[in-house]
Amino acid sequence: MLKVISTYEFEKLIESISEVDSEEIDILDSHGRVLSEDIISNINIPGFRRSAVDGYAVKSSNTYMCSETMPAILSFKENIEIGKKPSLELADMECSYVPTGGMIPEGADSVVMLEDVEFLGDEALINKSVSTLENVVAEDEDIKKGKEVILKGTTINSTHIAILISLGITKVKVKRQIKVGIISTGDELLSIEENIEIPKIKDTNGPFLTFASREDGCISTHYGILKDVEEGILSAVKKALSENDIVFLSGGSSAGNKDFSEKTMLALGELMFHGLAVKPGKPTLMAKCEGNKYIVGLPGHPLACTIIYKFVISKLIDKMYGRRANKIEQTLEFGENYHKARGREEYLTVTIKDGIAYPIHAKSSAMSVMAKCDGIVKIDRDVEGLQKGDKVKVMR
Amino acid sequence: MLKVISTYEFEKLIESISEVDSEEIDILDSHGRVLSEDIISNINIPGFRRSAVDGYAVKSSNTYMCSETMPAILSFKENIEIGKKPSLELADMECSYVPTGGMIPEGADSVVMLEDVEFLGDEALINKSVSTLENVVAEDEDIKKGKEVILKGTTINSTHIAILISLGITKVKVKRQIKVGIISTGDELLSIEENIEIPKIKDTNGPFLTFASREDGCISTHYGILKDVEEGILSAVKKALSENDIVFLSGGSSAGNKDFSEKTMLALGELMFHGLAVKPGKPTLMAKCEGNKYIVGLPGHPLACTIIYKFVISKLIDKMYGRRANKIEQTLEFGENYHKARGREEYLTVTIKDGIAYPIHAKSSAMSVMAKCDGIVKIDRDVEGLQKGDKVKVMR
Repeated sequence: MLKVISTYEFEKLIESISEVDSEEIDILDSHGRVLSEDIISNINIPGFRRSAVDGYAVKSSNTYMCSETMPAILSFKENIEIGKKPSLELADMECSYVPTGGMIPEGADSVVMLEDVEFLGDEALINKSVSTLENVVAEDEDIKKGKEVILKGTTINSTHIAILISLGITKVKVKRQIKVGIISTGDELLSIEENIEIPKIKDTNGPFLTFASREDGCISTHYGILKDVEEGILSAVKKALSENDIVFLSGGSSAGNKDFSEKTMLALGELMFHGLAVKPGKPTLMAKCEGNKYIVGLPGHPLACTIIYKFVISKLIDKMYGRRANKIEQTLEFGENYHKARGREEYLTVTIKDGIAYPIHAKSSAMSVMAKCDGIVKIDRDVEGLQKGDKVKVMR
Repeated sequence: MLKVISTYEFEKLIESISEVDSEEIDILDSHGRVLSEDIISNINIPGFRRSAVDGYAVKSSNTYMCSETMPAILSFKENIEIGKKPSLELADMECSYVPTGGMIPEGADSVVMLEDVEFLGDEALINKSVSTLENVVAEDEDIKKGKEVILKGTTINSTHIAILISLGITKVKVKRQIKVGIISTGDELLSIEENIEIPKIKDTNGPFLTFASREDGCISTHYGILKDVEEGILSAVKKALSENDIVFLSGGSSAGNKDFSEKTMLALGELMFHGLAVKPGKPTLMAKCEGNKYIVGLPGHPLACTIIYKFVISKLIDKMYGRRANKIEQTLEFGENYHKARGREEYLTVTIKDGIAYPIHAKSSAMSVMAKCDGIVKIDRDVEGLQKGDKVKVMR
């Protein structure tokens, strides 16, 4: 008997799965990795009072009511250079040049823009008044010391690297990379190099799972294609399990006479479920093994394999990384009437045209659907279908 | 005088820029690369008549009107195995077992599901009638020979690799990778390793541009930080230009006395523009050099640099790759009233909460905005602002 669960139950089931360990690495090696600590700023940013413009640092009170016809006349003290501390403090009726990003001298509380100042020898004629703090960036205006800046579970991208560097961080704690082993099974499968020979077909799930799990931040190895022979599969899975955190078995997951996935799992661990109540993707199964390791059997049908990996099984990887959700969800109008039988959740593939989501019609094809698919719409088990004009959530 | 252009004019300007050359590589090396040929299928997929279920291949006419009480009685011929050709053609009143994905024998036109068949010795009792082609996948049902499957300009992902493999493709033509050199300029900049020393700041644009252009499929090298000295910058850019297709200069792009970017560009190529009429990001400039090479000066302000790279300058890379648009755009409700001055286009950073886009308020801060930013909303130059409840397009 298959132990079939819903995708909701799947999500409950993986809640208790432990996260992998962390390691500390150089910030420049952290791109694509999952942060395993909240980043709290140890410093104020910018860290000093900075000018927002090219101009003259002044006491704002000295510019009160001044204008082109009645300029304030201040004595010029120095050219402050960017990246250098001012050498002089400003006294009353004094000013210093400060470039954008330059440090405001002590005594000044505002900056008059370059174009509002004229010179008469060493005297600066200020043609426009400024108010307190005008054109001044406060020392903690960007980031305050003690502030949470990036949260644990974030997948580090180019922007995060810039932020981390600005905080003075050189090393960062991230989750170690999850190792994934992929085994394709099926007497009908051909490798990439083999010539097509009808009625065999190319193994596409093996390479798909390898690259898709790499896209999800794993170190992935494809162990190749195995024939549907029980002993061969068992020893191959055993080896892959010893070298990885997760083993994906593609094919051999329904209950036919040649489907050895369940037997393999029972031999190597504890079966968590056999069957997902979702169309497509019923023949999905999973076992828990020693040492927080997992074997997942995925459907042999390429479209089902793709959808189930992307929208269900990748959540296992996210859970083990403690990753914050990073799937993109978009609410769009549905473009057709679509009928579905009640009683089973459905992941409907859609293509998006001019902001409207249309179902992709295809009987049992796979590759052509995958080529056109812009995302999926989840239809709940008790819903009978969708109407043209309905608002739907498209996930990709 | 700055030669300022709009972002629309920028897009026009890069239309005439040539694409980089192509190369042929192994399919397993193609992940993340840009396809430079349309992929037309040379074969039908699946390529043979395949069973959609586990069951018995029959002539549908032999099952006409049959039922449990009045089964059709067919003689069983063989067990067809998956991946193997049937050895026998079916004659009238015969059937053969065929598994899901197995090849339908000549003579059969449909498959009766396993559960609708009982056995009495060698005689199969068919309890349910089937119609022509029932449970049969036609040989060209998934992909027809001659069909366009994946278009030129597609960035190859895990799904595309699966599709390409299914077509029997082992090598694929892709654009060679664009090489990008990044030079940070500014007397105020500190490298990652240097201790923070006020009023200097960390160079974040250099690492950002390095990783962001890698995310866009380039081979990127950060040449480090240069002081604002004209000769040093000129020779560094010359070297970087000889080794790359594009050189990004961060900082030194406004018109202040220490801004050498324009001088450098005039010495090494032909200035295309100096100034983008968009907030933030005005101090952006670009030159065309010999051999389809480009120098781009980006704003020193980190937030401006990030936004201008992602939403403007990355289009140069897309153009050189001939890449199909892959930015994600989402129509959402705007959550506040937001005032903007007329006369300049604005790229407003927003954060998304519960499907509503809110502007991020921040005077001249950068890092904290970058940390919160979920995307941008373009506001046209002649628009004065946005109202709460407006529908806006969020790009990310």
